[in-house]
Amino acid sequence: MPAPAVVPVRRALLSVSDKTGLIELGRRLAAKGVELLSTGGSAKALRDAGIAVKDVSDLTGFPEIMDGRVKTLHPKVHGGLLGRRGIDDAVMADLGIQPIDLLVLNLYPFEATVAKPGCTLEDAIENIDIGGPAMLRSAAKNWNDVGVLTSPGQYETALAEIEQHGGLSRATRFMLSVAAFNNVANYDGAISDYLSGLKLDDAHEAIAGHEPFPAQSNSRFVKLMDLRYGENPHQDAAFYRDLYPAAGTLATFRQLQGKELSFNNIADADAAWECARSFTKPACVIVKHANPCGVAVSLDGIGKAYDLAYQTDPTSAFGGIIAFNREVDGATAQAIVSRQFVEVVLAPAYTGDALKAFAKKGNVRVLEIPVPAGTDLVAAHPGNNVKRVGSGLLIQTADTGMVKAEGLKVVTKVAPTPQQIDDLIFAWKVAKFVKSNAIVYARHRQTIGIGAGQMSRVYSAKIAGIKAADEKLEVRGSVMASDAFFPFRDGIDAAAAAGISAVIQPGGSMRDAEVIAAADEHGMAMVFTGMRHFRH
Amino acid sequence: MPAPAVVPVRRALLSVSDKTGLIELGRRLAAKGVELLSTGGSAKALRDAGIAVKDVSDLTGFPEIMDGRVKTLHPKVHGGLLGRRGIDDAVMADLGIQPIDLLVLNLYPFEATVAKPGCTLEDAIENIDIGGPAMLRSAAKNWNDVGVLTSPGQYETALAEIEQHGGLSRATRFMLSVAAFNNVANYDGAISDYLSGLKLDDAHEAIAGHEPFPAQSNSRFVKLMDLRYGENPHQDAAFYRDLYPAAGTLATFRQLQGKELSFNNIADADAAWECARSFTKPACVIVKHANPCGVAVSLDGIGKAYDLAYQTDPTSAFGGIIAFNREVDGATAQAIVSRQFVEVVLAPAYTGDALKAFAKKGNVRVLEIPVPAGTDLVAAHPGNNVKRVGSGLLIQTADTGMVKAEGLKVVTKVAPTPQQIDDLIFAWKVAKFVKSNAIVYARHRQTIGIGAGQMSRVYSAKIAGIKAADEKLEVRGSVMASDAFFPFRDGIDAAAAAGISAVIQPGGSMRDAEVIAAADEHGMAMVFTGMRHFRH
Repeated sequence: MPAPAVVPVRRALLSVSDKTGLIELGRRLAAKGVELLSTGGSAKALRDAGIAVKDVSDLTGFPEIMDGRVKTLHPKVHGGLLGRRGIDDAVMADLGIQPIDLLVLNLYPFEATVAKPGCTLEDAIENIDIGGPAMLRSAAKNWNDVGVLTSPGQYETALAEIEQHGGLSRATRFMLSVAAFNNVANYDGAISDYLSGLKLDDAHEAIAGHEPFPAQSNSRFVKLMDLRYGENPHQDAAFYRDLYPAAGTLATFRQLQGKELSFNNIADADAAWECARSFTKPACVIVKHANPCGVAVSLDGIGKAYDLAYQTDPTSAFGGIIAFNREVDGATAQAIVSRQFVEVVLAPAYTGDALKAFAKKGNVRVLEIPVPAGTDLVAAHPGNNVKRVGSGLLIQTADTGMVKAEGLKVVTKVAPTPQQIDDLIFAWKVAKFVKSNAIVYARHRQTIGIGAGQMSRVYSAKIAGIKAADEKLEVRGSVMASDAFFPFRDGIDAAAAAGISAVIQPGGSMRDAEVIAAADEHGMAMVFTGMRHFRH
Repeated sequence: MPAPAVVPVRRALLSVSDKTGLIELGRRLAAKGVELLSTGGSAKALRDAGIAVKDVSDLTGFPEIMDGRVKTLHPKVHGGLLGRRGIDDAVMADLGIQPIDLLVLNLYPFEATVAKPGCTLEDAIENIDIGGPAMLRSAAKNWNDVGVLTSPGQYETALAEIEQHGGLSRATRFMLSVAAFNNVANYDGAISDYLSGLKLDDAHEAIAGHEPFPAQSNSRFVKLMDLRYGENPHQDAAFYRDLYPAAGTLATFRQLQGKELSFNNIADADAAWECARSFTKPACVIVKHANPCGVAVSLDGIGKAYDLAYQTDPTSAFGGIIAFNREVDGATAQAIVSRQFVEVVLAPAYTGDALKAFAKKGNVRVLEIPVPAGTDLVAAHPGNNVKRVGSGLLIQTADTGMVKAEGLKVVTKVAPTPQQIDDLIFAWKVAKFVKSNAIVYARHRQTIGIGAGQMSRVYSAKIAGIKAADEKLEVRGSVMASDAFFPFRDGIDAAAAAGISAVIQPGGSMRDAEVIAAADEHGMAMVFTGMRHFRH
């Protein structure tokens, strides 16, 4: 049966862990003649502010017992929340159940409880709220008649409606109900994640460890935007972010100008940004079809880095995604828009002049990834990685592996020069973001040729060479990075013929000896990283 | 404080939606002298079987009201579940709260409620159980003292412990508690998914539609196995499946022999299986590094299909993943193990001879994807696809788009022959599973050259040609598929020079006219699909 558009709020129950805005809320509700019920800390805070509140135990006539484990789990509370106005009025009157029209309740995040250092199993279990979620679910179920506020951010809208109309509108009540059910799902999902990942000691008394991957994995994402379509126009799609996104990662972006983002824009932007932020010096990364097609680092700043990155493959750079790890200045922005068609630009910040230059090409999507003071951008954690397979999901920790010059093992008679080491590390970082099999040629911190996405390594090497030749880039004196080991010496022979002078690769092939011998024959330097970077 | 290893079960509350095993459970608990409490349908079923049960309303002294909305939300129930034995005994005795040592409760799946045809908003809301999850959470929180059974599959273990020891062990109680919290998380997640995806009419009365992507997306996965490592050895990983996997998809696999599956095995196996099951005739797909490196269809059966698929690129096929869409026979299995190193074989079934042949190479992972009678394998739905980005998630519907011969638009003066149409559709299905930019050359339902993963289309075309030449496969008379449109005529010119006679591509480029003119100049046939298949 249709409910009235506005349901009057006569009685409210307030029980919050986050006390933000509580006093003002209580005061304004009281001013509208709303009777306030409360418990524990919320009741005390309201009373201390001189606001009259009734204890829930006075309502139920049942004491709060078991150190608070049982206080609201009572038919007078749940009957008050769940009773259908117009249907259950008689039974409510008979049993002395007073309608509760508004529930204000938020839960202390379980993630925060278990993140506390030294949190024991008992602490975690004791902090699982039973009464709170039960009330949230009762109020949310009865949204026809009851409003439920789960976050201080909702108070002002609710107060405005109550002050203007004496109650909450149907649209508001539904929206609040959905938010409450989402809230409970988040809370229960966090408990499930935590408990199903716990390892206990043999006595099942103490925590012996945490499974990195719990028996049940619950992920909870909040929609940022619907997308016009997915990877292809016949697929539907949306973009979500984690409940708790990490600073410096793509999902914290702000779009400063430009057309709507597409699915492929976002995927490519992530690859570009992740690669750009892996460098500490000024860097530019151009991505096309999920692969870097030009990358450069320059001590002369990002303008020069962009010039060099562009040179690697101007054809592919057309319609690409460009990411920087430094503030973009006006000259660099102008150089981009004058020279090429670009889909998306990403950077931690932009000067006013840069924004003016981009404004002349209004379609260009300009994204800022804010980097709060104190954030180590190189170390920002993008969260676990996933890959969907038919009715299943592969979950893995992110590939945050990094190799430093000190960690390289020289395996050839010739050792790389300091300049070569610089280029080897540069090429290695790029190779990490190129789809496997990945081969990267680089010189003076500029990519010279990128061979991506091949089913056999030798073809990736061929492609890197072809691309360098097609763009008339000099390979002689360049270094080569390979994301995985060379299974045979042919890759090394081909690289030597092209003019490659030093190689970086994981090592670990059964034929390493043969591969090293080949490098020695050609007088090349070769270093092993001991770390592979497949990316498919 | 340490709890005793076994907590005696003296009183149990039973309230189940799935009545499987209920009577036997009740009978065996009663035989051990356990007092049984129950409600509604469960109480009736037990009584009808001659088992003595007490109504929960007799325990609470409070009537069941509001059509069952409020019956167990009472301190005598929750105090009985939450009371800490040894700590709360006095207050329980004072208030007449009797300990409940075992809760047997399962929830009717919310997904099933809302999947019923014609389910209204009122139906959905009325079916949200409030009392059940509250009891599950109370019992699960108090696992120190209480056992909780949420599924008939758990009854036998629990009964065995109770019959042998008079109660449940600590290890069992913990395991059951985690299962109960998982269960509640699933239930609440399903409610959140449903409600946050609802679109109501203007009056907020009736369902006007469902958002394909709800404001909050909750996914719930069950772990199938931990993996030795992820895409790379320095990454940790696990393999999960959907709560409700679809028949005919990878996650329903059974491993019949072989080494442990790796992360890359599973990812590649999915690509191979998805491609193989897209064909209706006998097909073989060989995948390496996430790309098909050889695909063939043969009316002579899968043995012949394997031979042809292998020929495309024997180098890449080494260490590959091989999928078939038909039962594998002994001769085909023998041909594989005699000829090549193979990581994984997938098929809907294997003959005894096939299994004997594989058994000679014990490391080969042999996976069966059961295809229950009545399953349309081509149409099996793998679920939504996801792509992880920094602190975010792109969610899209699966690329289930399929083009048929009738749907092709001939745009050239020359129309393709029936044989060419056959090859064009074949090449197009393969291109859908090749990483973009994808170019596939094919003839007589055999891949002749595959160009994958390039940042510009013309390089993918070059690679397809190079690969065909390297394997000495004749391109003349082959057809070409391109996963997206040709932006310029150069790709067509190059294909013609290589001997390609017909082309399939989406069309839709600004320069379609120029591209069509090029095909006409070369006397080629070209068809447009109107559908793109990017896959990154």
